[in-house]
Amino acid sequence: MEAAGVIYLDANATTPLLPEVLDAMLPWLRDGFANPSGAYAGAKLARKAIDTARGQVADLLGADPEEIIFTGGGTESVNTALWSLHRLAGEGAVVVSAIEHSAVLRYVETLGREVRLAPVDAGGRVILEKFSELLDGAAFASVMAANNETGVIQPLAELVRLSKEKGVPFHSDAIQAVGKTGASLTAIGADMLSISAHKFHGPKGVGALWIRKGLRFTPLISGGGQESGRRSGTENVPGIVGMGAASVAMKRSTEDGMLGRVREIRNAFEAAVLAEVQGVTPNGARDHRLPNTCHLSFEGCEAAGLLILLDDAGVACSAGSACMTGKQKPSHVQLAMGIPEELAKSSLRISFSLLSTMEDAMTAAEALKKAVEKLRRVQGLGVGPVQVYTP
Amino acid sequence: MEAAGVIYLDANATTPLLPEVLDAMLPWLRDGFANPSGAYAGAKLARKAIDTARGQVADLLGADPEEIIFTGGGTESVNTALWSLHRLAGEGAVVVSAIEHSAVLRYVETLGREVRLAPVDAGGRVILEKFSELLDGAAFASVMAANNETGVIQPLAELVRLSKEKGVPFHSDAIQAVGKTGASLTAIGADMLSISAHKFHGPKGVGALWIRKGLRFTPLISGGGQESGRRSGTENVPGIVGMGAASVAMKRSTEDGMLGRVREIRNAFEAAVLAEVQGVTPNGARDHRLPNTCHLSFEGCEAAGLLILLDDAGVACSAGSACMTGKQKPSHVQLAMGIPEELAKSSLRISFSLLSTMEDAMTAAEALKKAVEKLRRVQGLGVGPVQVYTP
Repeated sequence: MEAAGVIYLDANATTPLLPEVLDAMLPWLRDGFANPSGAYAGAKLARKAIDTARGQVADLLGADPEEIIFTGGGTESVNTALWSLHRLAGEGAVVVSAIEHSAVLRYVETLGREVRLAPVDAGGRVILEKFSELLDGAAFASVMAANNETGVIQPLAELVRLSKEKGVPFHSDAIQAVGKTGASLTAIGADMLSISAHKFHGPKGVGALWIRKGLRFTPLISGGGQESGRRSGTENVPGIVGMGAASVAMKRSTEDGMLGRVREIRNAFEAAVLAEVQGVTPNGARDHRLPNTCHLSFEGCEAAGLLILLDDAGVACSAGSACMTGKQKPSHVQLAMGIPEELAKSSLRISFSLLSTMEDAMTAAEALKKAVEKLRRVQGLGVGPVQVYTP
Repeated sequence: MEAAGVIYLDANATTPLLPEVLDAMLPWLRDGFANPSGAYAGAKLARKAIDTARGQVADLLGADPEEIIFTGGGTESVNTALWSLHRLAGEGAVVVSAIEHSAVLRYVETLGREVRLAPVDAGGRVILEKFSELLDGAAFASVMAANNETGVIQPLAELVRLSKEKGVPFHSDAIQAVGKTGASLTAIGADMLSISAHKFHGPKGVGALWIRKGLRFTPLISGGGQESGRRSGTENVPGIVGMGAASVAMKRSTEDGMLGRVREIRNAFEAAVLAEVQGVTPNGARDHRLPNTCHLSFEGCEAAGLLILLDDAGVACSAGSACMTGKQKPSHVQLAMGIPEELAKSSLRISFSLLSTMEDAMTAAEALKKAVEKLRRVQGLGVGPVQVYTP
């Protein structure tokens, strides 16, 4: 449980359930427990609830409901997509960007194929010419829609176009992008897209995979034949219903200005920090960022020390991705962008959600200012880098 | 949602959350939403909650907490176990019983190995001599602890002993057995066990895999390195906490007599049906059944017709497994037991849970009697088998 009064600014790690999402889930955690594969009335209601959720997710993505399968989360979606491409594609390398999430980077290592890493520019975007070169003789490609650490939106339409020109099937890890841009992710013509509910105010333990109609597909997980045989296992009805409800909310947020409000809050926070704190570098191409993400490097401040001070001050954010926390290694994303190792270890990711408020953002900016000052004072005493520990 | 007043007797398909399980989950669906990989206080609480749940599941299984990994459900657990064995074992066949759940049967088909099906006797138990013969030159084996349709408990200790003698690694799908027998499933010396929370009053979308300490293992799903690198993906904290709470409840139920009460209810139901209805055959070895499962064949009554009538009467049960519902094929489990196709299509699985009551069981027995009589009257008119449809 979150301590009362904590300002939560780590939405790219996970988001709280919107109250309406939990409300939608609760009946299916109580009386609506039936297995959707049953033959009785309660089971048919559960089946119908899944169908409704599938329509809601499809609507968010601009897809056909039958193109959507539900999974146990974003990582499973990504692994499933890559597995299917691996099994059905011919010989050849797999091309991924150097800044993919570990769900892509670690998984492609297991396939026994040559892995080609497409480099990014200083702004954190995949370099199109390099990507195009790497596609020669490739079997399939996977590039994320937006980076989880920097929030940098990738030139997905161009990447897809290049892949199509060379006949290379294309998957995108859209986990951080979905619901955070107004754009239709399916319209750009990729073959598969992975998404995860808990990144947009839905529940943990449920994700989805969009599989373009007509694409050949083979499942990662086989068994009872659920999800049209494309992902077996008793459906997580409450989770799926929650993902549907969150999809409705995210679609609405791009239409009613809430997403724009998130951008205003992020921008105000960033402006305040840049105005008040010296030696801060914002990372990532300014014109190609998710509206909710802010990635900053603080000269002479190890991120681990900042996180401790911010936690004490009741502000939750992260250094790099949540999965990298505690690993004390500079982020591969920042290194790929050419950020020096020292500075890469001094970076914070601050990520906002639909539940963030301007007041919290301003309080957090002030807390961050104090934390930086304190850390620099300590380090300025000539005792070297602050001792980092986990209490 | 379940219509009010429905008598739910399909616990082998899924079970309702115990009230205490939902209560344990709710804080993690509300304020306790943090990603356990975060560096802040809320994240550490989530991490601690996972550790607690891991201990609770380990306690139910008689295992060490570090031998347990959480997954997205039973099918994923089974696929993960088989994948790891497949990747790390040498050449050779995979031996499975002919009555495995499709999570095993369909998955082993994808591995490109010879699949050897160990036959069962008329009581639905694997024939040890045949199993032993099939192990020669085999790479690994997988046999369920108890069958999902008949509830027949397999001679697991002997099967494991035979496998060990021949140096063949052994996995067991223990999804239907766990919590329903007092026996420690880990003590018998298998290498891996798969379990699923929603089969024992925990939530859907979460399972676990027990991996014997020291066993070589390679993951099915790779990414952020959660679960000690053995199953990546942001942890489903509420689901995992729920699985822990359900494990505590199931362990208690074997100690406080509740499990014995389930057996009494099942036995009373079965006795009532056998006494009141003609032409009923109970299936499965009487001395080796889960305490909650009843599997009956009704001469001259297609199961599909019975299910419709029972649904109308407010009784939920199933023909074969939930996954097979609507597939209109006789169950492979019954065919393997030598039950004639006609009779196999006329079988019902009635499965009780900790929430079942004697009163409901007696009401259901009466409803079943009426349904059989009605169906036989209709079919007795010479119009042939009743038309089966899904309204």
